[in-house]
Amino acid sequence: MTTAILGLGNMGAGLARRLAGTDLVLGARNPAAAAALGKEVGAPVVSYADAIAKADVIVLALSLSRAIDAIAGANLSGKVLVDISNPMTPDFNGLTLGFTTSAAEELQKAAPGAQVVKAFNTIFSGVFAAPRSATVAVPVFLAGNDTGAVDAVAAVVTASGFTPERSGPLDSARLLEPMGLMNVRFAYGLGRGTAIAPAWVKLAA
Amino acid sequence: MTTAILGLGNMGAGLARRLAGTDLVLGARNPAAAAALGKEVGAPVVSYADAIAKADVIVLALSLSRAIDAIAGANLSGKVLVDISNPMTPDFNGLTLGFTTSAAEELQKAAPGAQVVKAFNTIFSGVFAAPRSATVAVPVFLAGNDTGAVDAVAAVVTASGFTPERSGPLDSARLLEPMGLMNVRFAYGLGRGTAIAPAWVKLAA
Repeated sequence: MTTAILGLGNMGAGLARRLAGTDLVLGARNPAAAAALGKEVGAPVVSYADAIAKADVIVLALSLSRAIDAIAGANLSGKVLVDISNPMTPDFNGLTLGFTTSAAEELQKAAPGAQVVKAFNTIFSGVFAAPRSATVAVPVFLAGNDTGAVDAVAAVVTASGFTPERSGPLDSARLLEPMGLMNVRFAYGLGRGTAIAPAWVKLAA
Repeated sequence: MTTAILGLGNMGAGLARRLAGTDLVLGARNPAAAAALGKEVGAPVVSYADAIAKADVIVLALSLSRAIDAIAGANLSGKVLVDISNPMTPDFNGLTLGFTTSAAEELQKAAPGAQVVKAFNTIFSGVFAAPRSATVAVPVFLAGNDTGAVDAVAAVVTASGFTPERSGPLDSARLLEPMGLMNVRFAYGLGRGTAIAPAWVKLAA
C-alpha cells in the first residue's frame, strides 16, 4: 500500500518524517523545492497528479479549498482520501462550516469516486516532532463510511506512531472539526501551547 | 455559596450525591416525590422557584426546553446558571442546533440577567456513581463569559470530585456540545459503554 502526502507544509512535512521508511510518495506544487525533504525521508517528490496516480491512500495536507483544487480532474476511483483540515475562519477563532456538513463531507462531494476519511485534525504539526513514545497512545480520530478505507488509514496512523480511534461515519467529522477548534483555543487563546491533544479516557473501575 | 440542582433525573440525582454535605438545595417539579433523595444527600427539596431564590449557582439538570421553562419568570439577577445539556435529536444521533449557536447560548438569551456557564455536558450520569478517585482527574469543561461565574462553577466542579477545565467564552459551547455527541457515539453506537469521558492530554516532553 502506497501512501501519498500532498502538501508539504508543517503538517505534511511532519507526517512525512513520521512515515519515513514506509512506501511513501510526496506530492508538491513545486517538487524541486521539496527535494531536501524527499531525500531526508527517502521518498520521491512529484507533482500532485503523479502522487495521486501512484498512491492508494492520499493524505491531503492542505486546506479544504486547496485540497479540492489538488484533486481536480484526477481519477480517484478506488482511492482513499484523507482530510486533515479544520475549516477555520481567518482569525482562527471560528469554523467556516459545520453542523449540517463538515470539511470532510465537502471533500467527499468533490470526490464522489473516492472514499474520504477524516484523520489527524486534532494533531498539531509540532506533535509529529515529539518522540514516538510520547505519541503512541495519542488518539487520531478517524471518521469514514467505508470500513476498508478506514482500516487503510488506521494502518497509516499506526505506522506514524499514533493510535487510530474509530469514531463512526464520515458525518462524525461534524463533531471532530469542532474538537479541532477547541484544541486550537486551548493551545493559543488559553495559553496551553501545542503539546496537547484531545483523547477519550476510560474510567478506572 | 448555595448550589441548587433543578431536575432530579439521572444527571441531577448523580450530581446531588456528589455534592452531599455542601450547601445544597434540590429543586423538583414534585418535591414530595424526591423526599428520599433529599434525605439521602441532606438537602431540602423545594419547588424550582424556591430553589432558584435560595441559590447562587443553579444547575439546570434538564433539557434545554425544560430549563427555559423552569426559569421563566424568576428573578435571575446575579445568579449563575449552569447548562449541562446536549441538544440532541430524538434518535440521539445528531444535534438540534449548533455552529452559529449552542444550547448554552440559547439559555443565555432566555436569561439575560443571569450568567450562564456550560459544564458537565461530557459527563455521563453513571460516572457520578464512580468512586471519587476514578473521576478526580476527569475534566469538566467550562465555558462562560464572566470570570466570577466560571470560578463559582469551578468550585462546584471541584466539590463534586472532578477537575474544572476552563475552555473559553460561552461560545465554546458550540465546540463542547459536539464533543458531548461524540461521547454518546463512542458510548452507544461504537459500543464502548459509558465509563468514558473526553479529556485533553499533555504530551510527555
